[in-house]
Amino acid sequence: MSENNLKFLETVASDRGAMKLAIEAAWEGIKKGQSPFGSCIVKNGRVLACAHNGVWESTNPTSHSEMNAIQGACRMLGTIDLSGCVLFATCEPCPMCYSAAHWARISKIVFGAKIKDAQLAGFNEMEIPAERMKEMSEDKIEFVSGFMEKECRRLFSTWYELGKGKPY
Amino acid sequence: MSENNLKFLETVASDRGAMKLAIEAAWEGIKKGQSPFGSCIVKNGRVLACAHNGVWESTNPTSHSEMNAIQGACRMLGTIDLSGCVLFATCEPCPMCYSAAHWARISKIVFGAKIKDAQLAGFNEMEIPAERMKEMSEDKIEFVSGFMEKECRRLFSTWYELGKGKPY
Repeated sequence: MSENNLKFLETVASDRGAMKLAIEAAWEGIKKGQSPFGSCIVKNGRVLACAHNGVWESTNPTSHSEMNAIQGACRMLGTIDLSGCVLFATCEPCPMCYSAAHWARISKIVFGAKIKDAQLAGFNEMEIPAERMKEMSEDKIEFVSGFMEKECRRLFSTWYELGKGKPY
Repeated sequence: MSENNLKFLETVASDRGAMKLAIEAAWEGIKKGQSPFGSCIVKNGRVLACAHNGVWESTNPTSHSEMNAIQGACRMLGTIDLSGCVLFATCEPCPMCYSAAHWARISKIVFGAKIKDAQLAGFNEMEIPAERMKEMSEDKIEFVSGFMEKECRRLFSTWYELGKGKPY
C-alpha cells in the first residue's frame, strides 16, 4: 500500500507540535495510573503513532512508550523498517528503547527529560545514556536532547503529586 | 494467585533440558520462516514461557524471542517482577533484550551462541556484549555464556540452508 493512501493520525508542522503529542500521550497514561512517559513517531510531518507507557496496565515490563510507538508505527506502515522516521520521547530512551530504535532503523530521536530525571523519580534505570549506546553501536542515528525539557520534566512532578502511579 | 496453583507448561530437571526447549522454540519459528532464535524462562524448574523470534510474522522489530518469553512469563505469573527466574536464550541477548531482562529483574541469563554469530548470519546487530551491558548498568544478574553453543549455533546454518528466512 502506498504511504499516501494510509490514514495517518494527523499531521504536525513542527518538532514542537510532535513533542506536544508525546506529552499529551504521557498525560493520557498518567490519568490511568500509568508511568509518566510518552512518545510519538513522525515521518515527513505525518504522525504514525503516539503511545504512553503501559507497563502496569499490561503487566509487561517492556511496554515503554517508545516500544509501543515503534510497534504502532510498524503496524501503520506494514514494515519493520522505520527509516526516515523521527521518534519524539518525553524522556531519554533507556537502552532497551534505544536498541529498539536501532532495530527499527529510526533516523532521529528527539527527547526532553533525561534518564537521570526518571531515576530521581524512582525508576530502576540503567545509567547508560542514549548517546553512549549510539557511540558503542556506531549507529548514524541523529539526536536532539533536552528538547522542551521543562515541559517534559514537569510530567514527573505532577505524576508524583497525583499519587496514582508507582515507579518500577 | 499462589504460584503453586498456576498451570506451568512443564517442568525441567536441568539447564540442558531448559535450553533444549529454547532450541525447540527456535525450530518452531524457523519452520514458519521466522529468524533462528528461541528462549525459555524457568523458575525453580518450572517452565513459565518458551518463545521464538516473531519479527517477520508480527511485523514487529522488537519481537525477539527473549522479549516474547519475558512478556509470556509476566502474563503467566501476573507480575512484572521475574526475580528468581532464569532466561535461557539460544543466542546472547542483544542490548534490547538484555535491558528487558534488567527491567523484569531476571536473576540469571544462560545463552548459547554469541552476538557475533548472529551478525555473521546477516543480522544488523549492535556489537555490545551482554557482559558489557551488565558492567555498565552495575546489574547483579548472573551469566552463563556458550552453553550448548554448538547446538545453538547450528540453528543459524540450518536456517540459512533451508532458505526460508531472511535476516533484518
